[in-house]
Amino acid sequence: MSKKKGFVNDITDIDENFAQWYTDIVLKAELADYTAVKGFIAIRPYGYAIWENIQKYADESFKKLGVENVSMPVLIPESLLSKEKDHVEGFAPEVAWVTIGGEEELEEKLCVRPTSETIFSTMYSKWLSSWRDLPFLYNQWCSVLRWEKETRPFLRSREFLWQEGHTIHETAEEAKKFTLDMLEVYADVIENLLAIPVLKGRKTKKEQFAGAEATYTVETLMHDGRALQGGTSHYFGQNFTKPFDVKFQNRNGEQEYAYQTSWGISTRLIGAVIMAHGDNRGLKLPPYVAPIQVVIVPIAQEKGNVLEEARKLEGKLKEKFRVKLDDRDNYSVGYKFNDGEMKGVPVRVEMGPKELENNEVTITRRDTFEKVTVSLDNLEEEIEKLLKDIHTNMFNICKERMTNKTTVAHNMDELKKNLEENQGYVKTMWCGSQECEDKVKELTGAPSRCIPFEQEHISDTCVCCGKKADTMVVWGRQY
Amino acid sequence: MSKKKGFVNDITDIDENFAQWYTDIVLKAELADYTAVKGFIAIRPYGYAIWENIQKYADESFKKLGVENVSMPVLIPESLLSKEKDHVEGFAPEVAWVTIGGEEELEEKLCVRPTSETIFSTMYSKWLSSWRDLPFLYNQWCSVLRWEKETRPFLRSREFLWQEGHTIHETAEEAKKFTLDMLEVYADVIENLLAIPVLKGRKTKKEQFAGAEATYTVETLMHDGRALQGGTSHYFGQNFTKPFDVKFQNRNGEQEYAYQTSWGISTRLIGAVIMAHGDNRGLKLPPYVAPIQVVIVPIAQEKGNVLEEARKLEGKLKEKFRVKLDDRDNYSVGYKFNDGEMKGVPVRVEMGPKELENNEVTITRRDTFEKVTVSLDNLEEEIEKLLKDIHTNMFNICKERMTNKTTVAHNMDELKKNLEENQGYVKTMWCGSQECEDKVKELTGAPSRCIPFEQEHISDTCVCCGKKADTMVVWGRQY
Repeated sequence: MSKKKGFVNDITDIDENFAQWYTDIVLKAELADYTAVKGFIAIRPYGYAIWENIQKYADESFKKLGVENVSMPVLIPESLLSKEKDHVEGFAPEVAWVTIGGEEELEEKLCVRPTSETIFSTMYSKWLSSWRDLPFLYNQWCSVLRWEKETRPFLRSREFLWQEGHTIHETAEEAKKFTLDMLEVYADVIENLLAIPVLKGRKTKKEQFAGAEATYTVETLMHDGRALQGGTSHYFGQNFTKPFDVKFQNRNGEQEYAYQTSWGISTRLIGAVIMAHGDNRGLKLPPYVAPIQVVIVPIAQEKGNVLEEARKLEGKLKEKFRVKLDDRDNYSVGYKFNDGEMKGVPVRVEMGPKELENNEVTITRRDTFEKVTVSLDNLEEEIEKLLKDIHTNMFNICKERMTNKTTVAHNMDELKKNLEENQGYVKTMWCGSQECEDKVKELTGAPSRCIPFEQEHISDTCVCCGKKADTMVVWGRQY
Repeated sequence: MSKKKGFVNDITDIDENFAQWYTDIVLKAELADYTAVKGFIAIRPYGYAIWENIQKYADESFKKLGVENVSMPVLIPESLLSKEKDHVEGFAPEVAWVTIGGEEELEEKLCVRPTSETIFSTMYSKWLSSWRDLPFLYNQWCSVLRWEKETRPFLRSREFLWQEGHTIHETAEEAKKFTLDMLEVYADVIENLLAIPVLKGRKTKKEQFAGAEATYTVETLMHDGRALQGGTSHYFGQNFTKPFDVKFQNRNGEQEYAYQTSWGISTRLIGAVIMAHGDNRGLKLPPYVAPIQVVIVPIAQEKGNVLEEARKLEGKLKEKFRVKLDDRDNYSVGYKFNDGEMKGVPVRVEMGPKELENNEVTITRRDTFEKVTVSLDNLEEEIEKLLKDIHTNMFNICKERMTNKTTVAHNMDELKKNLEENQGYVKTMWCGSQECEDKVKELTGAPSRCIPFEQEHISDTCVCCGKKADTMVVWGRQY
């Protein structure tokens, strides 16, 4: 049964139809919109500002690890895409091909990049000569195309924005370490910026990136208990450097192929933020990624010096926070409250004639709707504390959900039952065969999420075939 | 006659073959490289870092004017591109078409955006309803494709990076004002960040953007006296909003079409920086855009505590400047000096055992090669002053060149002669007919640069046809 009121009449109840609720939020909070090109979205200013904040945070972290940004061509010749066997098999079915340029049929068709391992490897082959040149730690922020059949804004678009890092190293050990270091960066972004706890682990061979030797992942859990892959980091060994001839003179004077990684996060994370935190009032944004951290709503703004004081307050708070003064004169205060809630603004500051008399304001937090009265004298410190507290509270709510929705299964019946009743993550033992993995997915709709770094001994036998097993896998239905 | 020495043997003399010198700099300073895709370049970390600094500076200026960033689809359906007649005529011949997606022939071919007026207009039509919604001040940072026949890194690539701003307004006056405000932003970027003086004006009808009512430009002059268009800002009136049905209810309750602008700067500006400032030692970067503002070269770094002190100094200077310590142990000091010069680093700090004894360092500026000895105690202030001074000096050198290379012509013979002898800008009167404009270009190879905002009365008659003329135009051969 839905409990809708006022402004939020427009959005579907989150527990009645989560998919529709999601679409409603994307459109009503003005994060993105559909376009004239099927499967392609327009990211609107409010949605893009979230992405800019993710970019800024992640880019700073990359640079601390010595990563430099570059720009590689958006088009890749078919012959290059085809050089690594697994890679082309994985990507060729879902690319878009440019066949005409400048009114002429091209001699070789060019695909719009779905990912750029092939281009980076080609350039690395040109630029690398000695071990002294290594490592190359390059990244690009760009858009990529994958011709998906079913699309959903942010979650699965034919075009999405992302960053793709590509590095080459002198030794396998160094490359492996870098792969894992980058996974930690992603965990940090998702937990400390987006307030979503992650499950860290390695993908099974079946689920790993086309052409990779190992894929590591940070998995997140949404409101409805379905999983979403937050970011992945791949170790390639020499899988690309051999066919692309990326070699160097090593310390012993011999020619050696370099060791490679790649890693990416995308605008899917905006989808994760919506689905991990939102509620029936709309979006609920984690404070540190929110484009507007504080909205000031003047009460009876036409009276006395309310608007003037509100503007002064805006100026003052802007030095420390991302602030918006909602001084629109054609909307009621109630509408503005609902609008701020729909947009997920963490903190609302109300300022009216009465408050002004007492040199105070009323603050409402978006996560709990708790109200407090605060003196203007220490407002900044209070807001700073509040933002921190909201972040922690939002993280903890997700963490608790993850705990409640993580179960254990010893056999297929338990696994099916757990997923039916609870969705979420189900831990089981697994023999390691792809046969069993395929069967689990077929019978439950849940692929493996990962082989968590933190292993537990649940039983001695595989959840599927009953044979001896010593690896714990987590399963879960996904976005 | 070339005066080459050491490291710089690899680059062509700037006055012998400017085109080859340019290519040498792009490759040797590791700004960009050719790729496996004809006409597409890879922008390397050092080149991309220049672009990041331009982006940061410009983006902050945009945001101060209320501009918000968005992301629009990279592909545009043929039917959309064709909606505005002049626009499609201008762009259709040079676009790349996607005809296959996900292994299937597309029903309608999609071009990779050459510019996005059509997509923005389509979305604006969806989002706009009342005058209260206006203005929409949106921008995107992205790459665009134009299938050029002849390409040169940064100057003319089939793909280039840029920003494209697209705004709609309630009134023609407001839109026109915004067009000119943005031109001022571009002038500020080019003069105060890139240290290149600009000539501001309006493009002739022939040279204006396909579909625009007016195009404004900031023009720059390169080392060889050829011009380069630095940035353009367009006023569209209702040329797009009518065919794209971008209308709103105005203050009188009537439906009205909105008034539109667009404006862009691109990675061509990196080409401008190279060609405006560079010399026979390599790149010469304006201090405020330089990825490395200060390079520290330890002298006899294997001795005593030189390296340790150099690292300390690096840490200290990093708080205020973009600093690199060149502590490579496999290169000589001379090589490092040349390398820093090739890369155009504005300030070099040398630190050796003798300097350390005296608590001082030797500083060399890239623009004049002047050396001074500075106490470590006030090094930061000295560097700050020096950067400012280098910027001013570089700007003034370009300004002087612009002055020297700006001439006046009263007839075609003078115009031809001036261009032959001096290149640069030639001011003439012009009757306003495209016939004369075409003829001048045909006979001199120089298109009109612009109708400068600062008009002068040179004579009473058109340089070409001799008829009455009261408009002053500037002509110049271009990149």
